[in-house]
This record gives sequence, C-alpha cells and structure tokens, in this order.
Amino acid sequence: MNDDLRRRMAFVLDVDALKRIDRRNAIRGGSRAENTAEHSWHLALMAMVLAPYCDEPVDAARVIEMLLVHDLVEIDAGDTFAYDDASQADKPVRERRAADRVFSTLPDRDGRRLRALWDEYEAQATIEARFARALDLLQAFLLNHENAGALWREHGIDAARVRARNAQIATASVALERFVQENIDGAVAAGWLRE
Amino acid sequence: MNDDLRRRMAFVLDVDALKRIDRRNAIRGGSRAENTAEHSWHLALMAMVLAPYCDEPVDAARVIEMLLVHDLVEIDAGDTFAYDDASQADKPVRERRAADRVFSTLPDRDGRRLRALWDEYEAQATIEARFARALDLLQAFLLNHENAGALWREHGIDAARVRARNAQIATASVALERFVQENIDGAVAAGWLRE
Repeated sequence: MNDDLRRRMAFVLDVDALKRIDRRNAIRGGSRAENTAEHSWHLALMAMVLAPYCDEPVDAARVIEMLLVHDLVEIDAGDTFAYDDASQADKPVRERRAADRVFSTLPDRDGRRLRALWDEYEAQATIEARFARALDLLQAFLLNHENAGALWREHGIDAARVRARNAQIATASVALERFVQENIDGAVAAGWLRE
Repeated sequence: MNDDLRRRMAFVLDVDALKRIDRRNAIRGGSRAENTAEHSWHLALMAMVLAPYCDEPVDAARVIEMLLVHDLVEIDAGDTFAYDDASQADKPVRERRAADRVFSTLPDRDGRRLRALWDEYEAQATIEARFARALDLLQAFLLNHENAGALWREHGIDAARVRARNAQIATASVALERFVQENIDGAVAAGWLRE
C-alpha cells in the first residue's frame, strides 16, 4: 500500500472514535445519549433539507462538508456541554490542539482542506459557517424539546439563557430562529422551561 | 409555521429513528453494534478523503449527499444483513415501500430530489453510485477486519464469499478493491477467515 492511501485509511479508522463520544442530549425517545457521529450525520442531512431557509445564498455542499468535520476534534477533546461555563472556557485551546493532531493524519493537501473547513466553522465569518452553526443549535434544541426539556430541567436552565443561546440562529435564518423562539414560548407554557 | 417548514421539520424528526437501527458490524473496539446513522456519517466523511481513489471523474458532493440518504429506508425496512440470502430476497420490495413513505414527508421538489438520489444509488448506473457503494462495502469490511473478523467467524463465512462480495469495489476503484483483497489474504493468514 502506498503511503498516501495508508494515511487516508489511518484517518478513516481514527475518526471511528467519534461514535464513542456521547453528547448531553438524548436521541428522540430518550432511550440513550446521542453520540457526536450520528449528530454530525443528522446536521448534514438537515443542511440538505433546510438550505432554502438560509437568508443568504449559501453553498450547501460546503455546509455539508463543514458539518461532517466540525466536531472531529471531540475525538481528543471530548464533548463540551453548552451550558457548562467552566468547561467552555478552555474549550478553544483543547480543540485547537485536537485539530492539530486529527487533521495532520491526512496527506498534506486534504489535511489542509479539512482543517480549513474546521477553521471556517470556528471563525463564523461566512454564511456557510453561520448556517452550519444555526443547524447545530436548532438540532440540539429540537431533540431536547422532543424529550420534554429534560436537559433544561436537569440543569436548571431558564428561558432567558435558552433564548440568548439560540438568538444567533438569526444571523443565518430569521425563519428558523423564529421557529425556535416560538417553541421556547411553548416550552414555558408547558412547564418544561421556567421563565 | 408555514406548511413547507412544518413538513421539513417533520422529516428532520422522523429520520432521527435511523440512530436506533443497529447494523451487524460493531464499531471499532467492538463495544456495541454500529447504527445506520453514524455509519452514514462515516461513509460521507470517507467520500471526502477517498475521492482521489475513484477511477473516473466523480462529483464528490453528490456522492456525499447520496450516502447521507442511501440508508434512510431502514427507518421502516430495518437493516438487512449482507450475507442473509433469505432477507436479501424481499429487501427491494420492503425498501421501495419505505422510500415511498419517507421521502414523501418532504415538500414535493426536495422530496423528489432526495428520492432521486436514493434511486440513483439503487440503480448503480453512475460512477457516483458505484463509488458510494464501494465505500459502503469498504467500510463494512474495514470494521469487521478491525474486530478480527467477528462477523465472518460468527456466521461461518468463507474467503470466497468475502472476495466475491467485495469484487464490485473495482467497478469504481481498482486501488481500493486491491486494498480489500490484500486484507482478505491477511485475514486468511491470521486465521480470522477460512479459505
């Protein structure tokens, strides 16, 4: 086997570890934690069917590729809970170190290409990155909402924090942000989320 | 919420069920079965890093989209084990019925677009479909090989069947097919697979 193919196969096997990274959200029905690999698939598929709701012209293929790699750093750095302020503080350092290792497994040109997609997501400067982030927020919201707000209740999170966190969805899609805010109102009314 | 967005959101929630469809292969390390959602993510990411090994010019973005939807029918039809001849017989009928339902959840144009990707994969007439199928075979082979051929031993599958099944990888990539055949030789030598 040539060295180029050997490195690509090593990457393919390495990333399998993302299936063992559990997130805080449960899958629909609540039977177990969602892992980051299946979460990434869900987001990429959402990009395919929600792209018409992006407020600016968007390169959907790049959004999909970005979503497929945006959480790969969790192989080394683990998942960081959105509402855990202490862990959020050193997340950038942990994840940058992970990115340096994970993407360097690949041959140079593709290693740089995938790293650039990860950097683009982190920088949030393009509509593709903002739309990808909007889908990430929307999906986490949807699953927790489907599970009757289990995470909000468990961690004592109030509506103001959930509203503030999801407000950035509007930087890519006002319609999707409005959808989430209306469902926050509904969750408050249902008693799953305290005002 | 308008009817178009309502239908897209219903689809997004419906497909979450793919995370509960277990495949026969275990994830790397063997701790549990791989599910079809994380499998689909793995294949899409493999398309990003193995596209240079496709023997013909290939639209990688379409391969990725195809891989994200190619197993959605398992939500209704379940996973069918590759070496279970009885279940393979009625698989096309079960899966076509599932496709009729799953994709019809979406608004017309996108429902037709995703259904067309699924049909394209099934027909295996384009290089994109053949390359997607090659990655599906390669990934299943890799995981089982990583787990010391657990599936081959459990089901008494011999090297001739594994060689025949993976020969079609060569319709998209001679290099990837050669990689698999060399690893089959290695598995026979290691005693994981009987000749």
